[in-house]
Amino acid sequence: MARIRLGMVGGGRGAFIGGVHRIASRLDDHFELVAGCFSADADRSCASGGDLGLTPHRVYSDFDAMAKREARLKAGVEAVAIVTPNHMHAAPAKAFLRRGVHVICDKPMTTTLREAKSLAKAVESSDALFILTHNYTGYPMVRQAREMIRKGALGAIRLVQVEYAQDWLTEPLEETGQKQAAWRTDPARSGPGGAIGDIGTHAFNLVGFITGLEVEALSADLQSFVPERRVDDNAHVMLRLEDGARGMLWCSQIAPGNENALRVRIYGAKGGLEWAQEAPDTLWHAPLGEPKRRITRAGPGAGAAAARMSRTPAGHPEGYLEGFANIYAEAAAAIRARQAGAPPEPAATLPGVREGLAGVAFVDACIRSSTRNGAWVRPAV
Amino acid sequence: MARIRLGMVGGGRGAFIGGVHRIASRLDDHFELVAGCFSADADRSCASGGDLGLTPHRVYSDFDAMAKREARLKAGVEAVAIVTPNHMHAAPAKAFLRRGVHVICDKPMTTTLREAKSLAKAVESSDALFILTHNYTGYPMVRQAREMIRKGALGAIRLVQVEYAQDWLTEPLEETGQKQAAWRTDPARSGPGGAIGDIGTHAFNLVGFITGLEVEALSADLQSFVPERRVDDNAHVMLRLEDGARGMLWCSQIAPGNENALRVRIYGAKGGLEWAQEAPDTLWHAPLGEPKRRITRAGPGAGAAAARMSRTPAGHPEGYLEGFANIYAEAAAAIRARQAGAPPEPAATLPGVREGLAGVAFVDACIRSSTRNGAWVRPAV
Amino acid sequence: MARIRLGMVGGGRGAFIGGVHRIASRLDDHFELVAGCFSADADRSCASGGDLGLTPHRVYSDFDAMAKREARLKAGVEAVAIVTPNHMHAAPAKAFLRRGVHVICDKPMTTTLREAKSLAKAVESSDALFILTHNYTGYPMVRQAREMIRKGALGAIRLVQVEYAQDWLTEPLEETGQKQAAWRTDPARSGPGGAIGDIGTHAFNLVGFITGLEVEALSADLQSFVPERRVDDNAHVMLRLEDGARGMLWCSQIAPGNENALRVRIYGAKGGLEWAQEAPDTLWHAPLGEPKRRITRAGPGAGAAAARMSRTPAGHPEGYLEGFANIYAEAAAAIRARQAGAPPEPAATLPGVREGLAGVAFVDACIRSSTRNGAWVRPAV
Amino acid sequence: MARIRLGMVGGGRGAFIGGVHRIASRLDDHFELVAGCFSADADRSCASGGDLGLTPHRVYSDFDAMAKREARLKAGVEAVAIVTPNHMHAAPAKAFLRRGVHVICDKPMTTTLREAKSLAKAVESSDALFILTHNYTGYPMVRQAREMIRKGALGAIRLVQVEYAQDWLTEPLEETGQKQAAWRTDPARSGPGGAIGDIGTHAFNLVGFITGLEVEALSADLQSFVPERRVDDNAHVMLRLEDGARGMLWCSQIAPGNENALRVRIYGAKGGLEWAQEAPDTLWHAPLGEPKRRITRAGPGAGAAAARMSRTPAGHPEGYLEGFANIYAEAAAAIRARQAGAPPEPAATLPGVREGLAGVAFVDACIRSSTRNGAWVRPAV
Repeated sequence: MARIRLGMVGGGRGAFIGGVHRIASRLDDHFELVAGCFSADADRSCASGGDLGLTPHRVYSDFDAMAKREARLKAGVEAVAIVTPNHMHAAPAKAFLRRGVHVICDKPMTTTLREAKSLAKAVESSDALFILTHNYTGYPMVRQAREMIRKGALGAIRLVQVEYAQDWLTEPLEETGQKQAAWRTDPARSGPGGAIGDIGTHAFNLVGFITGLEVEALSADLQSFVPERRVDDNAHVMLRLEDGARGMLWCSQIAPGNENALRVRIYGAKGGLEWAQEAPDTLWHAPLGEPKRRITRAGPGAGAAAARMSRTPAGHPEGYLEGFANIYAEAAAAIRARQAGAPPEPAATLPGVREGLAGVAFVDACIRSSTRNGAWVRPAV
Repeated sequence: MARIRLGMVGGGRGAFIGGVHRIASRLDDHFELVAGCFSADADRSCASGGDLGLTPHRVYSDFDAMAKREARLKAGVEAVAIVTPNHMHAAPAKAFLRRGVHVICDKPMTTTLREAKSLAKAVESSDALFILTHNYTGYPMVRQAREMIRKGALGAIRLVQVEYAQDWLTEPLEETGQKQAAWRTDPARSGPGGAIGDIGTHAFNLVGFITGLEVEALSADLQSFVPERRVDDNAHVMLRLEDGARGMLWCSQIAPGNENALRVRIYGAKGGLEWAQEAPDTLWHAPLGEPKRRITRAGPGAGAAAARMSRTPAGHPEGYLEGFANIYAEAAAAIRARQAGAPPEPAATLPGVREGLAGVAFVDACIRSSTRNGAWVRPAV
Repeated sequence: MARIRLGMVGGGRGAFIGGVHRIASRLDDHFELVAGCFSADADRSCASGGDLGLTPHRVYSDFDAMAKREARLKAGVEAVAIVTPNHMHAAPAKAFLRRGVHVICDKPMTTTLREAKSLAKAVESSDALFILTHNYTGYPMVRQAREMIRKGALGAIRLVQVEYAQDWLTEPLEETGQKQAAWRTDPARSGPGGAIGDIGTHAFNLVGFITGLEVEALSADLQSFVPERRVDDNAHVMLRLEDGARGMLWCSQIAPGNENALRVRIYGAKGGLEWAQEAPDTLWHAPLGEPKRRITRAGPGAGAAAARMSRTPAGHPEGYLEGFANIYAEAAAAIRARQAGAPPEPAATLPGVREGLAGVAFVDACIRSSTRNGAWVRPAV
Repeated sequence: MARIRLGMVGGGRGAFIGGVHRIASRLDDHFELVAGCFSADADRSCASGGDLGLTPHRVYSDFDAMAKREARLKAGVEAVAIVTPNHMHAAPAKAFLRRGVHVICDKPMTTTLREAKSLAKAVESSDALFILTHNYTGYPMVRQAREMIRKGALGAIRLVQVEYAQDWLTEPLEETGQKQAAWRTDPARSGPGGAIGDIGTHAFNLVGFITGLEVEALSADLQSFVPERRVDDNAHVMLRLEDGARGMLWCSQIAPGNENALRVRIYGAKGGLEWAQEAPDTLWHAPLGEPKRRITRAGPGAGAAAARMSRTPAGHPEGYLEGFANIYAEAAAAIRARQAGAPPEPAATLPGVREGLAGVAFVDACIRSSTRNGAWVRPAV
């Protein structure tokens, strides 16, 4: 099958997530990077394009110009990956959607709820797909957990404990000029949420993805422990979900010893499931009254949902890039289906504008609740 | 050194914690059980006393009669262990304290705050000691954590994540007549708190013991998932501690796959500590910017506080009974010191009426907060 | 039930294993220490006896005098624990056996095969019991493993991987005068085996206990890495067991980072089992073609054999002392049965002279094989 | 930088390792697959080529014809990946080497020592590079271990414990016609070694890579547990290495519950290191007398050697494919350096014919030793 022609907005030298998207897009050979707007500074964009082996005339410094020109090219980009800081997601996304180019966008979708709703409308009125890289949903054992719950392995869900802890912002790294820390703690570029926006949204998204339950209300206590930091760096949230389920969500960027400790535990009337991102090939299943079972990717007990996301035999670890690539693989399938005239809804597992809106509304709700001293509020989606 | 003569109230056939107290009291050879009131039913008490090899005339069925008579005996009990259900702690405690017999009491101290305060007065006006078996504080690596924090290893404490999860009440076990489940879910015997009283108090106590910080306010969401259960079986609590520290506390008796999963994680400006009761000989220390270290009981890096609580070399696991016995060993030391005319304050590490009051106030505050939809309340101590 | 009157030979101040035996004997209230010969030096023995609260006239400095006198006392010792260095096991054991006093002896049984055989004869011609504290067999999950294998859970056993690694002799500790290191590296007191005798025998014993299979031949490569050390401090052994099973045994006292890392893994045609002494409450069971299961002491899946050795609910760790106490509890049962006139054979799970002989023969075979450059030899039992 | 044009021999439909090589070659964008001989059957080769998007005239069914033609093409392959069963490595390797095409070959290098030596000569007389994909050496934390040892972190190496356990051949899978099982248990295609050749060589290679020590002699006991299996499915090996170090190596394909449990533990006079392939981002370091440290890829304590092999931040797991891709990345660097006229020796970390010979000699020595009942033999390299 021919590779899908991919463009990129953002992701120049010094960026982190752009490189991840490029590997993820390439890993299963579904995409080929052919154009990019890596910086608003022409020289820098050019240099990055050169690093990546792009022809100079497919390297841009203005995403709108890129969208316009690529849309006219015979072999212009079919899809574009948007990997800029959060405040720069919506505008390029709209520019490409308007021209029928599929958009694969990093999360959180936007910095404000208003902007999120506006982007949602743009998606609705476009023929192109909008895909949000909530990459942790691409892990095979996350798929396995989702499948098991849908099949009733846990009975009625009662509890969700989810957390995402890091330590990289324990000290005021943003004051050193470190690029990632600088924009991620700047409300103008990152949005009003700090930890809650950057990683809390992943935790929140994972809960919905795995359980299928929506959060009906939440009570949040957001903190900013590092002096002069302008956004939260730690958040405590209590959750009330559909059907009487309850939960807690903790996210932190100031918890020494934690790297990317995203962990979810789900308990129902008939059993429990536990999964941790740092050991992603393992899912613990505790059927009530039986010994706990260690289900491994591609090992005994792993089902079809995990198998679809799996490349190597059990015991040969797949990790973050493979999980990310799974989102790209599903995106490729959706794009090809759309190109072949398939019905408008892609796979339920592929995160899109709905998940994007939910994430932004979640951040908004956490901030509203915390401002009102932990009052229970409903995410406004 | 002569063994301290110990009596017991409660702990007859079919009880659980009585047997634990007996082993713990015996393990280091500081106590000898010589009398007991194992049941209000004379025949049952007698049978239990017989099982334990007691002389029949030292077996009672009325704790008050026991207190009265033993106090008059030349070689009467010097201390008494109270291991009845929660609602039966205060009365026997007072009966023995009044007669100058030291009391070692199971937790939570009482079922109501009012009763707790009344008992506190009784302790104050007695020459005898009151010791509360918050046994998890007896684990060597809990001592190690406390010592490290006091010495500044974590810098200023910012965060506490504590949880105590079990699964034994996932189904309505109390309806089967199981004795433990019956009284622990009966508000009349257990107090108004279910999980929050039974295990939440342990989690709460551990936070204070290790960090030295008090909880200034809390917001709680208590649930009762099993239909017709009369007390909470799951609780979510957000904490605000002294000096700006924050925390979350989760306790549950309905989380399948969890046995006694008490776990505490503490993060400060300079590092983190993590400890889990089910692997109690290990303490994880993450100094900021250095690899995480696995400190083991009696291994390199373990200090004097852990060593004092340790009997065997590193790698020979000590567990729950040893931790419990450490409370008894400290109790023995305090009793002997008191008998030798030492000043009134025993070791700061020995939990007593102050911790008992704090625990009951914690449960009270959680219930008040939850009733008011998670309003922040201050534990009233 | 009345406690069994216990004496002790060895275990004075500065000793390690004596204290362990005392706690283990006391933990379940089956024994009461009433006499002892803690040192051949009268003053030292007396001091140790005083520490332990013994009446001075029950403290001896000559084990033979002790045996003679105690045997004549009306309430003399019924059993004696022998906790001296290895070369001092046989003589006191014989002195007490000859007088009908039950012997509970530390391992390895003797330093030489000749001495072991002589002791075996003494046991045979005595009415008293001889019990060898291969304490690791007392762990509940070791019992569980044995039971599962006997019931066929693994099918035919094919493989055994066993290891016991420590690091305390990585440096020449014996040169510092440390008492434990001094006698354990002294062939005159410890026997010709160093690591292989001290801990290799435990590993070897565990294999037989769990699988029921005998070692038919072995090929050993013994090393002494620390210069001037007089015994092996590391040993590699390949095993050929009954019924075509094979195995490897590694023991070491010079493997930095290992405390008491005794671990056994057993694989059969239908599944595998894995157990580690440092996390003794857990047994991993991998039924072929199914997810691995984590069986916990007193948790779902644990059977009668584990339950018999268990005091507390699942999730409340039991450790080394409890495992050791299980041997004492079985010893107590055997002694009482013998006193009640039961048939001569105690429980198959109680290690005795047969296991003692096997252990000494194993050490002897390892040394013979290693001396002959790894030739396959058969342990001579 | 332009991608290196890559061909492939083997790896058609139903093969396993071919797909791994393709992803690994693509992951970092150093190679582009442009030609292949996927089967000796023209139709099958063609079908596989089609799956991979190759132009039909670059798909062959005769590796010799492929080598001949590609060498003449202006944009013919610059390198070729050989991913056929073991007995088909040497011939195609020679065909390409002879024509100056760089060879990236799967392991073990050949099925016989004679063939290995012949191939070694071919490599010597070619200008092209020969790279052997001992992929486990590509893991960042394996690099970290190697670097630490070279810098003296462990002092003099004393001990190596290495094992590679699987369970996929616990039953006679080869009798079901499963393709992988069929050729890997067929001496004609796999060579005389079964488990020892397939996975034992990886374990052996890893020891040399990490420690820099050669095996001077070994004593092996090979078994074939599954009836009628024609090669070993389990192997026990004792090792004597340079400088007095000793070791044990276990490999198995019949150990239920093991997936790809490759694990290496190395102990020196000053510390220990432990690494397991199934959790590859973690390296445990036990400096003698200090707490054990958990060093993570890209976390604190990880050095330059690991950083070079790392793509994502700590806590975002990298796995098998990334490790494999690291070999391809180093191969690309070596090929480009060679193309630029660099001196003949590529990076010391890149496995080549030397490691290939050593591996085949290791298998040969194991079989010779086992045949002679475990006699110590020296691998003939």
